[in-house]
Amino acid sequence: MSVYLKDIPLAQAQLVFRAALQEAGLAGILGVETIPLDEQALGRVLAEPAWARLSSPHYHAAAMDGFALRAEDTRGAQPAAPVTLAVDEQAAYVDTGDPLPDWANAVVPIELVEPLDEPGRVAADPRHPHFIQLRSALTPWNHVRPMGEDIVATQLVLPAGQVLRPVDLGALAASGFTRLQVSRRPRVAVIPTGTELVPIGAPVKPGDIIEYNAMVLAAQVNAWGGAANRVPIVPDDFNLICSQVRQAADSHDLVLLNAGSSAGSEDFSARVVEQLGKLLVHGVAVRPGHPVILGLLARGSGQGWTPVIGVPGYPVSAALTGEIFVEPLLALWSGRPPLQPHVVAARLTRKLTSPAGDDDFVRVVAGQVGDRLLAAPLTRGAGVITSLVRADGIAILPRGVQGLDAGASVQVRLYRSSAELERTIFAIGSHDMTLDLLAQHLSERGRRLVSANVGSQGGLVALRRAEAHLAGCHLLDPATGEYNLAAVRDYLPEVPVRVIAWVDRIQGLLTRRGNPLQVKTLADLTRPGIRFVNRQRGAGTRILLDYHLAQLGIDPVQLAGYEQEEYTHLAVAAAVASGRADAGLGIAAAAQALDLEFIPLYQERYDLIVPVAHLAGPLLDPLWDLMADARFRQAVASLAGYQVDRMGTIILDQS
Amino acid sequence: MSVYLKDIPLAQAQLVFRAALQEAGLAGILGVETIPLDEQALGRVLAEPAWARLSSPHYHAAAMDGFALRAEDTRGAQPAAPVTLAVDEQAAYVDTGDPLPDWANAVVPIELVEPLDEPGRVAADPRHPHFIQLRSALTPWNHVRPMGEDIVATQLVLPAGQVLRPVDLGALAASGFTRLQVSRRPRVAVIPTGTELVPIGAPVKPGDIIEYNAMVLAAQVNAWGGAANRVPIVPDDFNLICSQVRQAADSHDLVLLNAGSSAGSEDFSARVVEQLGKLLVHGVAVRPGHPVILGLLARGSGQGWTPVIGVPGYPVSAALTGEIFVEPLLALWSGRPPLQPHVVAARLTRKLTSPAGDDDFVRVVAGQVGDRLLAAPLTRGAGVITSLVRADGIAILPRGVQGLDAGASVQVRLYRSSAELERTIFAIGSHDMTLDLLAQHLSERGRRLVSANVGSQGGLVALRRAEAHLAGCHLLDPATGEYNLAAVRDYLPEVPVRVIAWVDRIQGLLTRRGNPLQVKTLADLTRPGIRFVNRQRGAGTRILLDYHLAQLGIDPVQLAGYEQEEYTHLAVAAAVASGRADAGLGIAAAAQALDLEFIPLYQERYDLIVPVAHLAGPLLDPLWDLMADARFRQAVASLAGYQVDRMGTIILDQS
Repeated sequence: MSVYLKDIPLAQAQLVFRAALQEAGLAGILGVETIPLDEQALGRVLAEPAWARLSSPHYHAAAMDGFALRAEDTRGAQPAAPVTLAVDEQAAYVDTGDPLPDWANAVVPIELVEPLDEPGRVAADPRHPHFIQLRSALTPWNHVRPMGEDIVATQLVLPAGQVLRPVDLGALAASGFTRLQVSRRPRVAVIPTGTELVPIGAPVKPGDIIEYNAMVLAAQVNAWGGAANRVPIVPDDFNLICSQVRQAADSHDLVLLNAGSSAGSEDFSARVVEQLGKLLVHGVAVRPGHPVILGLLARGSGQGWTPVIGVPGYPVSAALTGEIFVEPLLALWSGRPPLQPHVVAARLTRKLTSPAGDDDFVRVVAGQVGDRLLAAPLTRGAGVITSLVRADGIAILPRGVQGLDAGASVQVRLYRSSAELERTIFAIGSHDMTLDLLAQHLSERGRRLVSANVGSQGGLVALRRAEAHLAGCHLLDPATGEYNLAAVRDYLPEVPVRVIAWVDRIQGLLTRRGNPLQVKTLADLTRPGIRFVNRQRGAGTRILLDYHLAQLGIDPVQLAGYEQEEYTHLAVAAAVASGRADAGLGIAAAAQALDLEFIPLYQERYDLIVPVAHLAGPLLDPLWDLMADARFRQAVASLAGYQVDRMGTIILDQS
Repeated sequence: MSVYLKDIPLAQAQLVFRAALQEAGLAGILGVETIPLDEQALGRVLAEPAWARLSSPHYHAAAMDGFALRAEDTRGAQPAAPVTLAVDEQAAYVDTGDPLPDWANAVVPIELVEPLDEPGRVAADPRHPHFIQLRSALTPWNHVRPMGEDIVATQLVLPAGQVLRPVDLGALAASGFTRLQVSRRPRVAVIPTGTELVPIGAPVKPGDIIEYNAMVLAAQVNAWGGAANRVPIVPDDFNLICSQVRQAADSHDLVLLNAGSSAGSEDFSARVVEQLGKLLVHGVAVRPGHPVILGLLARGSGQGWTPVIGVPGYPVSAALTGEIFVEPLLALWSGRPPLQPHVVAARLTRKLTSPAGDDDFVRVVAGQVGDRLLAAPLTRGAGVITSLVRADGIAILPRGVQGLDAGASVQVRLYRSSAELERTIFAIGSHDMTLDLLAQHLSERGRRLVSANVGSQGGLVALRRAEAHLAGCHLLDPATGEYNLAAVRDYLPEVPVRVIAWVDRIQGLLTRRGNPLQVKTLADLTRPGIRFVNRQRGAGTRILLDYHLAQLGIDPVQLAGYEQEEYTHLAVAAAVASGRADAGLGIAAAAQALDLEFIPLYQERYDLIVPVAHLAGPLLDPLWDLMADARFRQAVASLAGYQVDRMGTIILDQS
């Protein structure tokens, strides 16, 4: 009975699902409801075309305060030869919006007439004179809003499928509507399953997973015009899940069955769907998200089917499954066009590989640097929800593409508007905790700071390729002990840049509280049983380490864990905090953030390198303002291990 | 006390208002409220930065189903030299998401091990073997999601001012939030005033204006994150309005006072504001919308102020006042960035003039034709709400610009996404009622049809300038009696186009029901007392009229009203229906729509002229499908006076 397929292409999965919906009579709007025309109708979808029932204006209306008259009566009026009309017989006072008297065909604005009580005598009350004098002629329909100027009865006001905006409500009222036929909101049950799940707010112990996929899916459904009903967590019990799904199928239009994140649990969901209806698709070749399940559940009444989507447990997969499968279905059922992502071509900042058989959805941050739109890939981990939060869009590597080189053009579905990208400061380089603080302050000043953390050298390479507005850099020159100047000469000999001091900061050893292993110098790291965690090649901290190891005559192979690389100070701190390592080299703020011991060793200068091309112009202005802002400087200085005395000082102007 | 200003520049008005808000302590978020973290938080604005309270994962988690082990124990494993580990002592089965045992530092996926019950014997239960054999070595942290992989406690999850999206809710849950600090929704009173106003649903008589501005404003406020409270219509009574406004000021954060459309009524509103507080601005040099009022109302308690915006009565002015003044205020009070319109450069399809002193907001329809984004201005009438409904954007002619020529580049704030513009068929040319029907059917097939009605000749000119995807055309060649072919030769000698038959239609005289003046031929139009209404120069119907008048030897000056021009058949019909004219030349469908008498005179062919450049490609595919679709052809044929037998026939292929 069921069509059991393993990782079929996305397009094929969509076709199979659509065909099954068609057969079940579920490939159109689910139903129509009548609602009153008021502000609550905002966002609802018209189920029928709206043909005007009334013209607007529904009568000939004065468009100005003035006098209604017959244009013919003003013939010949000139500055030197005024025409005089008798009020009541030939002219009648009207306010804007008043109906034109039957006999009139034009309005003269009040400021263009001379009101008289008798020929030659100015009227006491300009709105109630006995005569008016005009010094220019009118043509018929001057200053009149003729009936139907806005809408002619029977004309199309709005097509079916219109998602109602505020002005649409106005146009519908103007054309005589008092009630509207809109599509019924699809009712969607969201069922989280998994014994390892705990609800938001419950205390957590290792192995517990906070359940939030169902909340994210419910919020998506509501945002897309559905009515979500999130049911409590169901533990991994086949009969319990069957019972819950069966019940949901009877009272909803769609069931979203969110499996736990365990690889086996999707098979569990598939068995449930097989038991209760038809399993159409199990496995779609998309990444992340491939264990998607599509099926139909038999309704208990024996009448009809309720579609079910088995949503994978990893949060990135779950959210993308919503975008790929749930949104188009809600669009179909509401009768509106599916959301059209804004797809643009962008330039990849680093190489990407991709399995050839999958449609690969890679989260990226994006920024407009000069005339280039750049896309920097974020982590691929399906469990990393913050990668979706940080994502400015999704780069799509279609089936058949095995990878793309740095600099290649890639199609990106943008989550941000062009306007947001235009106010984005795109920073590539070394990570520092003060950049988080900067991001927060910049956001209050209308800028987004997007950082791709690739280390100091990576930042200079990005500047050479004109792929960043600025780079954070703290590169020690082993020959001189100077920071950054040699590196700028080496990496950016041709690029006019300014090197601007940001902070002076202390680098030191991070250990667990109380420093139980008494690691106090780099030499201590060579002791047996001490597990070190390193930064990646090219990071300023790595160069600092290598420099001092060389000074001390220590061979890096003597450090256990030297080859374990992390990309940020916080990641190093987290490795120590979790017990995965005993010590790392990093900054005081990272130690403070995770309540670690910090053994200060070296002070270093952390600069911002800014191409001269980006110095002027409004984008970076808030950055300059902040550097000079006492409150901001104080906030930075209050982080452990930072000095801001030189912040803003120009170290080098290589123009 | 009050600063009474008349039509000051927009930027100045905004400064004055902002300064007054600052002084009143109203230039930031209004207040913070704590809400539970669930799907109802969607769209709320974070009042404080969210720093992670919990790492995610909050423990080292297995990333695969398999066996947890120490990477060191697998050293040296190779295809020809497997390593065997004892379960319980050296390896432990884990499901994805399970916490890693304290002693382990890596996970080997189950599909990469050989489960054994004793060395050399395959295990009966692969998840519970006594030994596992591996044929490749692991490195530490392989297939482990280390604590903090997603979020490290203390890291910034989201900045203050974030408008919460579904994935944001997930990230907040993952980082240990259970409640959120969000900005309080601003409470906004919307007060419609005007004795001429009637509520939606009430019967209307001439002079009555259906009140819908308050509904549009309320819907805007709700869409922008405020909580609107629409109060019943208040008649034009100074004391009544004062009392209502005073009451609203005490219980709301903002009062929107919508004046009637009468020019005098804004002064009324200004007096109310003066009476109850401070009138800051009366008149802003924006078009439409200049009678905007900005002020502060004293709260009854004697404590503090409530801002008030006097919103002009014309519906287009009212809606634009919302966009220009209300949205940024709600953004400020919610702590989110104001909406950033998507501004693009577009090419004007016709000349625009503008008063030099005003910021001029001109509604336009827009379409992407080839590599050009085109903007066709719509009517300027502030009473024409449908112009806002139809608008794809607002072209901005800033203060100081007196006008722009056709072909000039203009900045347009787009209401539509690029994706919507890319599925827009941009038609310029002659108007026909069947185009409304076509628009409706195209919208069901994922296309928008945007028509600028400039007559047949105007359409050919647009095609010559490559400014349209197609043009509707019915141009009689007086020399041959043929339709369109001569005109295409004359106007488009160099442009490869295809002429495709659309409909055959009857043109005739439109008169009031019963044809009381017995107008039956063109000759009858010369009779004294018959008022004619004409189409504009270049319209096919106008050429048809002139051709037959010439044939009959009638001088156009003999027709009273010959110089009165309308741009569409419906507008001609409306002129006759309203009594503004006695007869017009037009199509049967227009007569039927407005219940007029129709006296058939001439049959003509109405073609679509399509440049060869646009024939291929997916944009116009749904048009070709519809031309061949029996149901659609039947729908067109059922309109009075249309034949569809030749629909789709290629009349000329000028490639």
